[in-house]
Amino acid sequence: MTTERWLEWLKKARIGHLGTSNRNGVPLVVPVCFVYSCDAIYSAVDRKPKRKHPEALRRVVNILENPNACLVVDEYHEDWKRLRYVIAQGKARVLTGGEEYHWAISQLRRKYPQYHSMRLRSRPVIKIMPRRIIVWSYEPTQNSQAKRI
Amino acid sequence: MTTERWLEWLKKARIGHLGTSNRNGVPLVVPVCFVYSCDAIYSAVDRKPKRKHPEALRRVVNILENPNACLVVDEYHEDWKRLRYVIAQGKARVLTGGEEYHWAISQLRRKYPQYHSMRLRSRPVIKIMPRRIIVWSYEPTQNSQAKRI
Repeated sequence: MTTERWLEWLKKARIGHLGTSNRNGVPLVVPVCFVYSCDAIYSAVDRKPKRKHPEALRRVVNILENPNACLVVDEYHEDWKRLRYVIAQGKARVLTGGEEYHWAISQLRRKYPQYHSMRLRSRPVIKIMPRRIIVWSYEPTQNSQAKRI
Repeated sequence: MTTERWLEWLKKARIGHLGTSNRNGVPLVVPVCFVYSCDAIYSAVDRKPKRKHPEALRRVVNILENPNACLVVDEYHEDWKRLRYVIAQGKARVLTGGEEYHWAISQLRRKYPQYHSMRLRSRPVIKIMPRRIIVWSYEPTQNSQAKRI
C-alpha cells in the first residue's frame, strides 16, 4: 500500500492499542479509541477512576513520568495473508485544557458518536506526536517486510 | 464475569497486544498470537527479520534489556457496553530451546493451524509470567470498575 493509503486506513481505524511505560520501564498497554489528525494521535481518558482524579490514571501517570509512547493499529483475520499493522512511536503529552484540548475532544466526538452522551470535558486527552511510523502487511513479492513511512 | 470465565475467554482469544520497553523505557506494542496455558502466556516471534538473527527483533531485545512486559486482550464493538479487556503484567523471558520451548511451540500450533506451514523451530518464544491481571467490562450495577483477578 502507498503511504497515503496507510494513513487513510489509520484514520479510519476504530481501535488502537496504546503503550506507555512508567519511570521504571514497566509497560502498560490499553485499548484506546483515537483520532489521527494533523500528524498527531489523540485519545481521551474516558473511564472515571474510582476515588481518584483522572490524572491519577496509570497511563497518564506513566506519560508524566516518561513521555515515550507507542500506538499500534492492526487488523486480525484468520487468513494471515490479510494481517496488517501500523506502529507509531513518539513522545506523548497530556492535555487538560486549552484550544488544542477542546479541538481534540470535538474531533473524537465527531469520529465516535458514542462520546456524545459522555462527559469528557474534565478528562485528560493524550496526544502522541509520532516520530517513527512502521507499517507491515503481507506482500508476497516483497517478502512481507516492515517499512518505515 | 467470574474469574474462571475471564480466564476461559483469555484462552480462546485469537489476538493480543504485547507491550515491552527497552532499557530507556521506550515502549513497543505489537499484535501477537498467543496461548495462555499453565498460568503463563506464550507467543512466537514468527516473522523473519531481514538481515538479522531472530534474536535481534526489537521485542526480543527489549525483553533481554528489560523483562517487564504487558499483554492486553480485548474486544471492540461499536456498542461500548460490550467492551471488555484483560491486562496481564509480569516478567517475560525469551525461550529458544528446551522442553518448555518445544511444548509452547506445540501449543501454539494446536491453537493456530496457520502455524502448521511455518517453520518456527528456529524462532524465539516469549513467555510472560503474569503477576497482576486486571479485567474490565461494562457492569451497570458496579459502575464498570476494573478489578484484579
